[in-house]
Order: sequence, then C-alpha cells, then structure tokens
Amino acid sequence: RLEEIAASLHAADLADLIESLAPDERVVLLDTLGGAMEPEVLSYLVPAVRQEVIEHIGPKGLATVLSALESDDAVEIFEDLDEDFQRRILTQLPEGYRLVLEEGIAFPEESAGRLMQREVVAIPAAWTVGETIDFMRSAHDLPNDFYDLFVVDPKHKPQGYIPLSRVLRARRPERVSEIMESDLKTISYSTDQEEVAYLFRQYGLVSAPVVDDAGRVIGMITVDDIVHVIDEEAEDDLMKLAGVGESDLYGRVLETTKSRGTWLVVNLGTAVLASIVIGLFEATLAEVVALAVLMPIVASMGGNAGTQTLTVAVRALAMKDLSTANAMRFIVKELTVGCFNGMIFAVLTGIVAWLWFGRPDIGVIIGLAMIINMIVAGLAGTLVPLTLDRLNIDPAVASGVFLTTITDVVGFFAFLGLAALFIL
Amino acid sequence: RLEEIAASLHAADLADLIESLAPDERVVLLDTLGGAMEPEVLSYLVPAVRQEVIEHIGPKGLATVLSALESDDAVEIFEDLDEDFQRRILTQLPEGYRLVLEEGIAFPEESAGRLMQREVVAIPAAWTVGETIDFMRSAHDLPNDFYDLFVVDPKHKPQGYIPLSRVLRARRPERVSEIMESDLKTISYSTDQEEVAYLFRQYGLVSAPVVDDAGRVIGMITVDDIVHVIDEEAEDDLMKLAGVGESDLYGRVLETTKSRGTWLVVNLGTAVLASIVIGLFEATLAEVVALAVLMPIVASMGGNAGTQTLTVAVRALAMKDLSTANAMRFIVKELTVGCFNGMIFAVLTGIVAWLWFGRPDIGVIIGLAMIINMIVAGLAGTLVPLTLDRLNIDPAVASGVFLTTITDVVGFFAFLGLAALFIL
Ligand SMILES: [Mg+2]
Ligand SMILES: [Mg+2]
Ligand SMILES: [Mg+2]
Ligand SMILES: [Mg+2]
Ligand SMILES: [Mg+2]
Ligand SMILES: [Mg+2]
Ligand SMILES: [Mg+2]
Ligand SMILES: [Mg+2]
Ligand SMILES: [Mg+2]
Ligand SMILES: [Mg+2]
Ligand SMILES: [Mg+2]
Ligand SMILES: [Mg+2]
Ligand SMILES: [Mg+2]
Repeated sequence: RLEEIAASLHAADLADLIESLAPDERVVLLDTLGGAMEPEVLSYLVPAVRQEVIEHIGPKGLATVLSALESDDAVEIFEDLDEDFQRRILTQLPEGYRLVLEEGIAFPEESAGRLMQREVVAIPAAWTVGETIDFMRSAHDLPNDFYDLFVVDPKHKPQGYIPLSRVLRARRPERVSEIMESDLKTISYSTDQEEVAYLFRQYGLVSAPVVDDAGRVIGMITVDDIVHVIDEEAEDDLMKLAGVGESDLYGRVLETTKSRGTWLVVNLGTAVLASIVIGLFEATLAEVVALAVLMPIVASMGGNAGTQTLTVAVRALAMKDLSTANAMRFIVKELTVGCFNGMIFAVLTGIVAWLWFGRPDIGVIIGLAMIINMIVAGLAGTLVPLTLDRLNIDPAVASGVFLTTITDVVGFFAFLGLAALFIL
Repeated sequence: RLEEIAASLHAADLADLIESLAPDERVVLLDTLGGAMEPEVLSYLVPAVRQEVIEHIGPKGLATVLSALESDDAVEIFEDLDEDFQRRILTQLPEGYRLVLEEGIAFPEESAGRLMQREVVAIPAAWTVGETIDFMRSAHDLPNDFYDLFVVDPKHKPQGYIPLSRVLRARRPERVSEIMESDLKTISYSTDQEEVAYLFRQYGLVSAPVVDDAGRVIGMITVDDIVHVIDEEAEDDLMKLAGVGESDLYGRVLETTKSRGTWLVVNLGTAVLASIVIGLFEATLAEVVALAVLMPIVASMGGNAGTQTLTVAVRALAMKDLSTANAMRFIVKELTVGCFNGMIFAVLTGIVAWLWFGRPDIGVIIGLAMIINMIVAGLAGTLVPLTLDRLNIDPAVASGVFLTTITDVVGFFAFLGLAALFIL
C-alpha cells in the first residue's frame, strides 16, 4: 500500500512526504521503498533530511543515485558530503562521472560552475535548420530538457542562441546564423549565483550558457534551478534579518538551540549596552519613576521605524534597485519621512504621557526624544545597510543588530538625558 | 547621444535607468525617447514609476503600447489603471484587444487568469510530429515564446504536453499521442498566484495551461512571469514582517510617511500596553531602581527569540513546508529550544545582573523571568502564525505585532512581578 502510494507520487511530492515524517518514520518508509525510489527524490530533499537519507542508503547506494542524475543535480548533492564520503563515492563511479563531480566541486561555492549542467546543445552557425533537427534526432548525449540551442564558433565560443520555438517555426533550408539571436547573455563559471539569478530575472531567460576563462561553452544553467536560487536567496535575507543563520525547520533541537543562541548572545550584548545607558540616569529614574514607565516607548518606536527603512533598503540592494545613482535621494527621503513621522508621533506620545502622569514637561520631553530617535532611525536605516554593502558585508546579516542598538541607545539616552537636564 | 544609449539598452535595463532618475529627469528622458521606446519597457517598470510614465504618455500613447504587448503583459498594466482611464483606453483599441483586456480584469486579482497569456499552442493528439511542425511553420498567431505544446481533445480539454525539446528529437511520422507526457499540471483560472508559483517551483515547470470551469484550455502561464510572482511574494512577506505595507522605495514622501505611520500607530498602541504593565509596578520600581535599568533586557531577548521562531514559521508556511502533518512536532521543538536557550541566558543574564548590582536576588529573578519569557516566545512564535494561517489571515502581516506585544508584556510582567513578590 505504502509502496503504491509512493510510486504514484511525483518525486518532489515524495520528497515532501519524507520531510514531513519524524526521523524514525523516515527510516521505515525508506526501507519499504528500497531501490524503488526515483533518484530525483534525493535532489528535492532539503539538505538536513537529505543528509539522513544518505546516511541510510550508504556510499554505494548514493553512487548509483548520483550516476542516474543530471550533472548539476549530482554536483548539488555531492558538494554537501564530507570529504571522506566524497572519496568513497568517487571510487564507485565510472571515470566520466568522476571527472564531472571532481570538476564540479572545484568551482567556487554558490557559483555558476556549481549550478550548471555539463549537458548542453551547441551547434555551429554554418548549419541549416534541417541539419540541426537531424542532429538532434540522432544525438544520444543531449540534456533531458533544454529550451535554447547555443550557436558556437569552431573554438566553441558562443555567438548567439535560438529558442526552440523559433527552430520549430523555421524552414529546413534556413541557416542557423540567420535565425539566431545575437544578444546572448553568457555567464562566467565564477559568477555568483545571486548575479546569475539577477540575469535570469532581468532578461526573462529560460537558459543560458556558462563559459570558461577562454570564453568556451562548458555548460548550461536552466531556469528551474534558478527558481530554487531565488527562493534560497530570498529566504536567506529573511532569515538573516530575523537573526536566524538559515531556516532550521528540519534541524535538530541541539543544533537549532546553538545556532539561535549565537545570535541571541549578540543581542544580549546590545541589550546590556542599552541598560548601561539607562544606568547613567539611575538618579533621575529614582526621582521620577514615570520615566521608567514611559522609556521603552521611544526606543521601541525608533526600532520599528528603523526596521521599516532597513528592510526596504536591504531588499532594494538585493534586487539591485538601490545603487549609488539613487542612494542620496533614498537617504534624503527616509530622513524626511523620519522627520514627519517623528513630529506626528511626538504629538501623539506627548499627549498620552501628559494625560497619563498629568505632567506637561514629561510630555514635551518624550516628544522631543521621539523626534530625535525617529530621525536617527531614518538615518541608521539607510546608512547602515548602504555602508555594509559598500564594505562588501551582506547588509542583511548585520544590519539588524547595528540598527536596534543605535535606536535603543539613542532612544534611552535622548529621553532620560533630556529629563535629567530639564526636569530635575 | 541619450537616444543612442537608450536604444542600445535591453528594455529591462532602460526601465531600470528610468526608475533610477529623479521625477523631473524622467520627463526629460521620456520626451527625448518619444515613440522610440520599446513597448516592453512599460512592463518592466515598477508600478509607482509606471504610473508616472503613463500619465506622461496619455491614454492614446498607452493604447498603442498595450496593443503591441502580449496579452498577459497588457493585462498587467491595464489592471492597475483607474476605471476612467481604463474606459478611455478601451475605446482606442480594436475589438479583439478590447475583449482580451476586459476578460483579463474580470478574473480575480492575483489569480492565474490575470497571469496567463491568451496566446497558446494547443494541438490534437491525432496529429503526427510532422503535421505539428508543419502547422507551426505556417501559423501566424503563435506566442512569441513557448516551451511546451499542449495536447487537447476535440473539446479543447488538455490531455498532455510535449516539451519542445522532445518534439525536435522525434521523427516526423511519430504520433503526438505517443510522445506526449500525460502527467500534465493544469491550472484553473481562479487559482491564486501563490499556488501557481508553488506548482512551478515544485514540479520544475516552464509553462502550464490554464483552463476554464469546463476544463478547456484558455491560456498559458510561463516561468518568466512566475519568477516575478516569486519575487513579489517573497518581498511581500519580508515587508509585512517589518511592518511595511509594500516596498515603497519609489513612493513619494507623503505616501511613504502615511503608510509607514499606519503601522507605527499599531506599534505605539502595543508600546503603551507594555508601559501600562510597567506602570503596575511603579512602587517596586521606585524602591529598587536597578529593576528599571535591567527590565528592557528580558523583553528584548524574548522579542528576538520569538522573532527567530516566527520567521522560520512564516517562511515554512509560505513554502508549504509546515502543515498539520508536522505542526505539532515544530511546536514541541521550538518549545524545547526556548527552554534550553531560556536556561542558558538565565544563567548569563543572572550573573551579569548579580555582578552589576551586587544583589544575587535580582540575578535569580531576572533569570527566572528570562526562562519564562523565552518559553513564551517559543510558544507564541509558533502558535501565532499557525493560528493566523488556520484562520486564513496572512501570517506575515499580523504575526509581528502579536508576538512582540506578548513578549514585551510577559517580559515586563514576569520580571517586575517576581521582583514585587520576592524582593520587597
Ligand atoms: Mg519540497
Ligand atoms: Mg548547495
Ligand atoms: Mg549568496
Ligand atoms: Mg538542472
Ligand atoms: Mg533541477
Ligand atoms: Mg543575499
Ligand atoms: Mg527592473
Ligand atoms: Mg499587478
Ligand atoms: Mg498573495
Ligand atoms: Mg508573459
Ligand atoms: Mg513577461
Ligand atoms: Mg504571502
Ligand atoms: Mg521546500
């Protein structure tokens, strides 16, 4: 029964089913399936669960799976194995496959070289459409799926491409050189996957050739793999902004505790820093306890306003919508928005504080502190990510800490400092 | 010079150039370009800037642009216009185009019907490969780009599909019915775009047919448009979690102030709520001012730990990785992680507090409050998004407020409450 259900599922759905099970249930399902599991299932699994499955099927089983996959999918699984396991796999594989995997992991991590498949259709410009079709009908080593033909010169350098839909609509005697598009986007093997995703997104590509240092075609990247890169990069930014290294939905308790804890230590540091600032005003707080009651408001509003700006900036940087061309305009705009919202919330909060404690002076002071902190939030929300980006530090990962540290410190210091100056 | 540069750019790059200019510079560029601007540029612009360009070229200019675009791109631009402008456009268009636009906006917003293009290649199963190729060579109303042929029965209901790469590799006498794949994923016109993106991502689709209520093919969705949907939905979650309605990088100052302000009002409400909780313990605070200094630490750590869990949950829900099948396991895991990190940070913070103020009792109390708040953070970080999702409320938009309200209130209440009970 279970086998039947599993066999009727698409590999991607079977992978999801395996992911949704508890670890002990997984083992039972895997044992039941045995060799009946399609090799593609392994590609669809999230790394944490894939790791478990690989431990279960062992190096020999994995070698069989890898040799049944297309080269990009094989490399994607292979790259995550530890070196010892990699060596054991390689000895199980025929020469050709071994080379593909060895070369694959020699490319930089998260580069086009890692993403590409070696199987690609490259044809000479001198061919006719008829010759091209005849070639494809008889060739045996074509990719399973492809969407464009790449036209190459005798040195295998790309000169253009033809979408398959255009090949199908052309007549047999037409020349490849006549119907090809020459504004081809070629990708170097060393290009970062984020940049590759940008090219696919920007130009609506479905596939693109990857070239070596000499400019020769060595592989192809297809859009289905780019969809995963886009998901990965978006998730990455989302997680980093929230202080999660990477999504740990499938991680074990201890690993999750550890990785979350690392970030929380940083936060404890910044929280203590904010407390130190408050500690500077112990005397003031002891005198007017209303200040202690109200003080989190200024810090929290600044943190939230700053996070709004920061998030817009981080996303815009990731999507290449924010650059030196419009950075200045963005900063000025956010500063203006900070001023406006600062004044609006100064009035609102000031009235609340006044009515609550019956002291107009506290109302004025919280209002002033609010304006200061909202302006600082606008500045920090733009300058922090822009500066980190300029320094080649991922703006998603470190912005959040910097920002809330700034808005907490400034929020407490402005409110309590003004109170110390003008109330006592 | 400017015209030359603009003419040499890909439409997507020209759109970026226009976006990066200040509003007054935009007008100059648009005037210089005039009719030389490719119609596709308008599709590539972000809505805020596109709006400006449309106001500049007027209804007549826009009608010309729309009729040069593929139907999905035309609908995408048309749907954002106000009704008056829409009517003026429609009168400028020939009957066929008018119908496509009118039908397009009759589909629900963000549905497959809005995303699809009407141009699609549907062929009968009885044809041979040769007949299919001959048809494509002579047909005039094919889509500009397509990746699969959809095989339909006489009632135009889809029976399967053939990737173009397979058509090209088949011999002329082979029958369409023999080489087609029958596990076709069809999409109803009413399916939400998030669900459509899920299907493309899950099954690695490059195109899929859209069907009406009778199951007949009425259009096709292609992966390049899904890439934009994926970007949009990821951005949407990122922005909502940060309390930004939608990315307002290109929004005007007043609009941005207003939309950001709306969310900040909600935050002011929750900040005041937290202050009210603090206010309950005014007497305690007046007695032991060290409590005022330390109290933001517990609230802040709880907020950060909860946000970590929340973000993992929101992303997993969006990617359909979290469902009733594994929700319970997720909750238990996060609760355990909360306990562990609670205990670790209880010890760390307790020691800091003890050393700082030389009072072990404050150390114990802040430690206990930390454990309570971290456990609550784990619970709230899982239950809040899961519950909102069950109630069909977007977990991204409302989770953040709920969560930090809970961790602030619990954090202050636990710390000050324990202090009131045991110190005084
Ligand atoms: Mg999956
Ligand atoms: Mg990888
Ligand atoms: Mg990266
Ligand atoms: Mg692939
Ligand atoms: Mg793949
Ligand atoms: Mg990134
Ligand atoms: Mg753009
Ligand atoms: Mg739209
Ligand atoms: Mg949606
Ligand atoms: Mg389209
Ligand atoms: Mg398009
Ligand atoms: Mg969403
Ligand atoms: Mg997944």
